[in-house]
Amino acid sequence: MTTLTNTRQVRIEWGDCDPAGIIFYPRYFEIFDASTARLFETALKMTKHQQLKNLDFAGYPLVRTRAKFIKPTRFGDDVTVETKITFGRTSFEIEHRLSRGDELCVECSEKRVWVVRDAEGRLKSHPVPEDVREKFGV
Amino acid sequence: MTTLTNTRQVRIEWGDCDPAGIIFYPRYFEIFDASTARLFETALKMTKHQQLKNLDFAGYPLVRTRAKFIKPTRFGDDVTVETKITFGRTSFEIEHRLSRGDELCVECSEKRVWVVRDAEGRLKSHPVPEDVREKFGV
Amino acid sequence: MTTLTNTRQVRIEWGDCDPAGIIFYPRYFEIFDASTARLFETALKMTKHQQLKNLDFAGYPLVRTRAKFIKPTRFGDDVTVETKITFGRTSFEIEHRLSRGDELCVECSEKRVWVVRDAEGRLKSHPVPEDVREKFGV
Amino acid sequence: MTTLTNTRQVRIEWGDCDPAGIIFYPRYFEIFDASTARLFETALKMTKHQQLKNLDFAGYPLVRTRAKFIKPTRFGDDVTVETKITFGRTSFEIEHRLSRGDELCVECSEKRVWVVRDAEGRLKSHPVPEDVREKFGV
Repeated sequence: MTTLTNTRQVRIEWGDCDPAGIIFYPRYFEIFDASTARLFETALKMTKHQQLKNLDFAGYPLVRTRAKFIKPTRFGDDVTVETKITFGRTSFEIEHRLSRGDELCVECSEKRVWVVRDAEGRLKSHPVPEDVREKFGV
Repeated sequence: MTTLTNTRQVRIEWGDCDPAGIIFYPRYFEIFDASTARLFETALKMTKHQQLKNLDFAGYPLVRTRAKFIKPTRFGDDVTVETKITFGRTSFEIEHRLSRGDELCVECSEKRVWVVRDAEGRLKSHPVPEDVREKFGV
Repeated sequence: MTTLTNTRQVRIEWGDCDPAGIIFYPRYFEIFDASTARLFETALKMTKHQQLKNLDFAGYPLVRTRAKFIKPTRFGDDVTVETKITFGRTSFEIEHRLSRGDELCVECSEKRVWVVRDAEGRLKSHPVPEDVREKFGV
Repeated sequence: MTTLTNTRQVRIEWGDCDPAGIIFYPRYFEIFDASTARLFETALKMTKHQQLKNLDFAGYPLVRTRAKFIKPTRFGDDVTVETKITFGRTSFEIEHRLSRGDELCVECSEKRVWVVRDAEGRLKSHPVPEDVREKFGV
């Protein structure tokens, strides 16, 4: 039940923004998804591509997300995304905090499940493997 | 505090899906944003483009969203999105229910604010205009 | 070397547009990709999902695209996309014409290849199967 | 008619890829658009947001693009995008080369026009301002 944190810089692009000149909010979820991937990559020392090849694993789909949009961001902004993970047994919680300088702009909390494919190729949830949890120091 | 409902059909496309073969979840928020736009268009009998021209209005940015992903959808699925609005004074709540046949796949609830531009061109919240509320029958 | 044509309506959405208020051009390619999928679906009477299950097939990746942007489109526009296919042996040419009313806005021509997976799971090009071509009446 | 070059690193993300496990090609154009923005930012020492505020300028919409997809890329790939500009009078040509290691994956050439807004707020092409060209050393 410990946590691990990862931080990365992201540029908000022209194409991320809408006619109001601010980010089109679905883009935040693309940013957060990539931050989650980066956290796993850092802990496991494998890209997600290698993880899918080397682990008993078919991804970690979202089961729930909640986000608060505090300040808008706009093209040309360089933002920082801080991502924190907390493990359950077959699921984990991810928290993202996106800031511009010391201004908090978005808070997001996700619940994801570890899934594998069954014999018919369907996705089903599965306990997060021990060797994965160990790599996170949990 | 009454509500208005809108329903539309959406096809989940190949390009909406990720290497697990299911929809990449940020795409749901693009679908929901378009459903919100369609609801306003139906009530106001103007496209969003015309609304921005004709109303004292600079958009309705999101301040909060919550979504539950119950069943995955995948490319080739035709889904139904039901969208319901409830007005507050300067804000409104939107609820989206995305289903495939009679299977509920995603539930999402959004809080949005009506914004205008101040003298410096910055976005600020503003009471939803009376003539807008009237068009929704509220 | 005959051709088949397909036409569909598309709404340009708020979230497809950039701070200049016009469509962010990569969205056109998402629209075109979905038009190509619709053309195959119409001819084969299967969604792309079913095609991948039932045909010896791993997709039809693009090898070349060329597009001319003649008039900008913007959110709220309802556009028509006309899509035409011409078969080669292992590849095919797709032409898309996107119009608003009788105004031609974008012309795009794509070359795609039919691919299958080899024993190692890598994508490689392959002649378009006879039963596929027949369904297109070619 | 001289040229200026810019190079940047991009990570291909899970959410950029489709069910075939390779990048969904419209994402390349998002990457290229951001590379073009970065090139202008480097030359003008202003973000695009500042450019729109400080220059007589409403963007540089695309009038034509051509791309060749030589090798597919997939999630987890770190690619390099080399971007080169050549100026005409009211337009400019951009060339992008996207590589993974020393393997060339995509070549793209764009023609864009410098636009300003006329009295009615419509976009129209305009000679690239002298002070802009000077910053590019042209």
